[in-house]
Amino acid sequence: MAEQQTDMTGQEEVQGQQGAENVVYIGKKPSMNYVLAVVTQFNNGAKAVTIKARGNAIRTAVDVAEIALSRFINYAKKGSITTGSEEITNEDGTKSKVSTIQIPLSR
Amino acid sequence: MAEQQTDMTGQEEVQGQQGAENVVYIGKKPSMNYVLAVVTQFNNGAKAVTIKARGNAIRTAVDVAEIALSRFINYAKKGSITTGSEEITNEDGTKSKVSTIQIPLSR
Repeated sequence: MAEQQTDMTGQEEVQGQQGAENVVYIGKKPSMNYVLAVVTQFNNGAKAVTIKARGNAIRTAVDVAEIALSRFINYAKKGSITTGSEEITNEDGTKSKVSTIQIPLSR
Repeated sequence: MAEQQTDMTGQEEVQGQQGAENVVYIGKKPSMNYVLAVVTQFNNGAKAVTIKARGNAIRTAVDVAEIALSRFINYAKKGSITTGSEEITNEDGTKSKVSTIQIPLSR
C-alpha cells in the first residue's frame, strides 16, 4: 500500500484553513482524531466540511462521518458522497490506482 | 473486528437472485471476485445492482465499484451513495457499531 496521505491532527491544520476550503484528509490515525478535526471546524464557524480519503482510509472516512454526525454535530447533514480513483506513483516508479471518497458535510 | 458479512462468490448466488433485489455483499475476498459478481448480474440482465459493505470491506466496496465501472460496465452509472452505521453483537455479547456503505449502480 503506497499511501501518501497528508495526515492532519486537527488543531494545527484547522487553524490555517480558516476561510479556505474546509477539508479534512483522513490518514492512519485513530478515527477520533479526525472527528475532532471535523467538529472543530464546525465550531470555528465553518458552514461545510469535506472529508476526503483514499485507499484503506476510506473505511475510516465513513466512520468519522457517522461518529461526528451522530454524536457531535447533529445539526449537520451529509451531502452527496462521491467516489473515484486516482493514479499514484509508487516509490519504485510503478503506478497503481487507488480509490477515493469525498463525504461533504454541511450545516 | 467482528465481521459477520455474507461472502458471495458471484456465480452461485447470482443464479438465485434473478428477479430479486440485486445486491452484492462485499466480504474479505479479493476485489475481483466481487467485480465479477457485479458484472455477471448486469450480463444476466439486471438493470440495477447495489454493492453493500460494512467495516473494513467498505474500502473494497469502493474499489469494486470503480473497477467495474471503469473496466467492465461503462454503460452503468453510480447512483446516490449512502453510508450509515449498524449495531452488531459480538461473540462475547457486547455490542459495537460498524459503519456501512451502499453503492447503487444502474444501467
